Amino acid sequence: MTKKPEHAPISGFPVVDGEITVGGIGLSRLAARVGRTPFFAYSRALMTERVRRLRKLLPAEIQLHYAMKANPMPAVVHHMASLVDGLDVASAGEMAVALDTGMAADLISFAGPGKSDQELSQAIAAGVVLNMESFGEMRRIADLARQQGIRPKVAIRVNPDFELKASGMKMGGGPKQFGVDAEQVPDMLKELKTLDLDFEGFHIFSGSQNLRADSILETQEKTLALAMKLAEHAPTEPRKVNIGGGFGIPYFPGDMPLDLGAVGEGLGNLLPAFRDKLPRAAVVIELGRYLVGEAGIYVSRVLDCKISRGQVFLVTDGGLHHHLAASGNFGQVIRKNYPVVIGNRMQGRETEEANIVGCLCTPLDLLGHKMSLPVAEVGDYVVLFQSGAYGLTASPTAFLGHEAPKEVLV
Amino acid sequence: MTKKPEHAPISGFPVVDGEITVGGIGLSRLAARVGRTPFFAYSRALMTERVRRLRKLLPAEIQLHYAMKANPMPAVVHHMASLVDGLDVASAGEMAVALDTGMAADLISFAGPGKSDQELSQAIAAGVVLNMESFGEMRRIADLARQQGIRPKVAIRVNPDFELKASGMKMGGGPKQFGVDAEQVPDMLKELKTLDLDFEGFHIFSGSQNLRADSILETQEKTLALAMKLAEHAPTEPRKVNIGGGFGIPYFPGDMPLDLGAVGEGLGNLLPAFRDKLPRAAVVIELGRYLVGEAGIYVSRVLDCKISRGQVFLVTDGGLHHHLAASGNFGQVIRKNYPVVIGNRMQGRETEEANIVGCLCTPLDLLGHKMSLPVAEVGDYVVLFQSGAYGLTASPTAFLGHEAPKEVLV
Repeated sequence: MTKKPEHAPISGFPVVDGEITVGGIGLSRLAARVGRTPFFAYSRALMTERVRRLRKLLPAEIQLHYAMKANPMPAVVHHMASLVDGLDVASAGEMAVALDTGMAADLISFAGPGKSDQELSQAIAAGVVLNMESFGEMRRIADLARQQGIRPKVAIRVNPDFELKASGMKMGGGPKQFGVDAEQVPDMLKELKTLDLDFEGFHIFSGSQNLRADSILETQEKTLALAMKLAEHAPTEPRKVNIGGGFGIPYFPGDMPLDLGAVGEGLGNLLPAFRDKLPRAAVVIELGRYLVGEAGIYVSRVLDCKISRGQVFLVTDGGLHHHLAASGNFGQVIRKNYPVVIGNRMQGRETEEANIVGCLCTPLDLLGHKMSLPVAEVGDYVVLFQSGAYGLTASPTAFLGHEAPKEVLV
Repeated sequence: MTKKPEHAPISGFPVVDGEITVGGIGLSRLAARVGRTPFFAYSRALMTERVRRLRKLLPAEIQLHYAMKANPMPAVVHHMASLVDGLDVASAGEMAVALDTGMAADLISFAGPGKSDQELSQAIAAGVVLNMESFGEMRRIADLARQQGIRPKVAIRVNPDFELKASGMKMGGGPKQFGVDAEQVPDMLKELKTLDLDFEGFHIFSGSQNLRADSILETQEKTLALAMKLAEHAPTEPRKVNIGGGFGIPYFPGDMPLDLGAVGEGLGNLLPAFRDKLPRAAVVIELGRYLVGEAGIYVSRVLDCKISRGQVFLVTDGGLHHHLAASGNFGQVIRKNYPVVIGNRMQGRETEEANIVGCLCTPLDLLGHKMSLPVAEVGDYVVLFQSGAYGLTASPTAFLGHEAPKEVLV
């Protein structure tokens, strides 16, 4: 008899008096504090604990960066800035939030395949590190920097000649809009030497949302080897090599958490050879989802309980306009259920099979399909876990004209 | 030899001096007027023409409603309000825009499976028609209306006992969160008679984005038959029967435009029997995408032209944060290309195979995959057609912190 795959257990939100808690606060009280549903709540303590665990299990010399695209709420970015060694931004808008935290500009890097002249000029003035994605962008940076009389810090984003296997999203390998093909980098470095640019290092990012330590390690090995090879062509020894991240979190039934200890141990074995060759290059791991994804929940409230032709529908005041990924419409090929609970009925209630839907007038607005859940009533809280990353800002909040949800860092 | 399927021809944006025009204005000049890219431009004349064509080809007695969820830009809603017989809204936010147009409240209907008490109270006070989606919602409306001393206009949204075949999105048939199962409607009408509610009629909506006249007609026939059957249980003859819409527009290679003449002729044959039975019930067709979808374009600009391992990438300042559907991440199972042109190179240029990507740091940000396009340069305008509906508001504008695009009605 085969068992149906289940969601990995969620432990960060302990149940007290039948309710889940966030940072020690019961869900009903938290909802009262926020003032209305729906809302996202993020746990400061869970983020802190995640960074602590990374520091413990990864080699001590690894520097951690937070890729704020995962969750750009200013309070979250401020908190992360106090924990990590650098921030990575993807737009001038994100850069402004990052600089507001007080993080030193040269610990902020700016990547993205389509940076406008306006954005490049702002970044040059700010003094952040520009991850250059093409020859054309390098020349634009050199021109714009000359106009400002500034020598900007630049890194080359490399499109590697290999792929991150078993990755949820491939960002490198093959033809890509990201970075410069590895085989073109020596020519780019040759040209870089002729320009007034301060060479920082390399950014080699292969993919994201990977749950397999072995494939992450295989990628790290190839990434470090590629960085060593490319460094031979560099004007100076790289000060930093950003080897990306790719650490995934378990979203769907059957997903198993990443074995972080195995990644740390394997990476520890890879570093000595790298150090021999590049004694002064800091190795950076850039993480977004892995730092904040499991620290957040999305809370909505049941507006209606319906039975239609034998199926239960819990209609909530939330929906895909707040949490597109949970509806299966953001990069997923096949829709699967996020882990969902009735946050105020965690104990002693019989279960039923129910669908969780949002308030939108579209069949896409499905947050839970045929899930086994405690029998719910109007007013109950529907809680989606694993919602700390790529939630609110990755969703079409204006769709159908509802108010934007609240966000709270607890 | 089989030919590769092609996009249906686009005729609404005539080429003048090698550039497409919108409402007679050349693209470069329009971009200068807007002030920056990216932007959405919508053609007033194309919307007017679309309504004119519907009036001509559909039976004269058919009333047309605009479902403003398709494009809620206030200027668009104002223009549509001057052309159609009613507006359909999906939230209190949309209702406010609809009322601002001056459209009479009782010509505005409010549908949606998850209306909050707050929204219901606002709608009751406004005097719009509430499409009731469940027994529970009916009781809430009666309670809230009593508190305000108002007798609200209500219609019953029916989940039919059949499906719209060949439809891009099914909204009825089987178990659904939308409306009341047809077989429960007689009981609901019985209860409605005991409440102080002003019965307006039925709303029977089966699905959307259908390109086949025969399946639309089959659905219309079943919908009218269902309305006649349910009307036998109603307290008074329905004043209105909203039979939905479902008229699709051609997005992808191989899609053929809907044969609107065939729909009009077929519907003309269906109406006499309906009239015999319900002489005073107005028949409403509710359209969103079909009214505005083909009247809009999304314009971005090329920031970088790259060749990566033999493939051309045109990197634009736009992306899925403005136009999620074009990236294939909004309801599509398999990504297909929207019709795309280089809007300022419509004549006399050799073509190449190119990928159009947005400026976001994610491989999802793909707006055109291996398309045959005129050889483009930095600064050129990339134009996506069929972008007047479910564009901006159906997209995660805050994703990665870029500025929201502009919208202009020309």
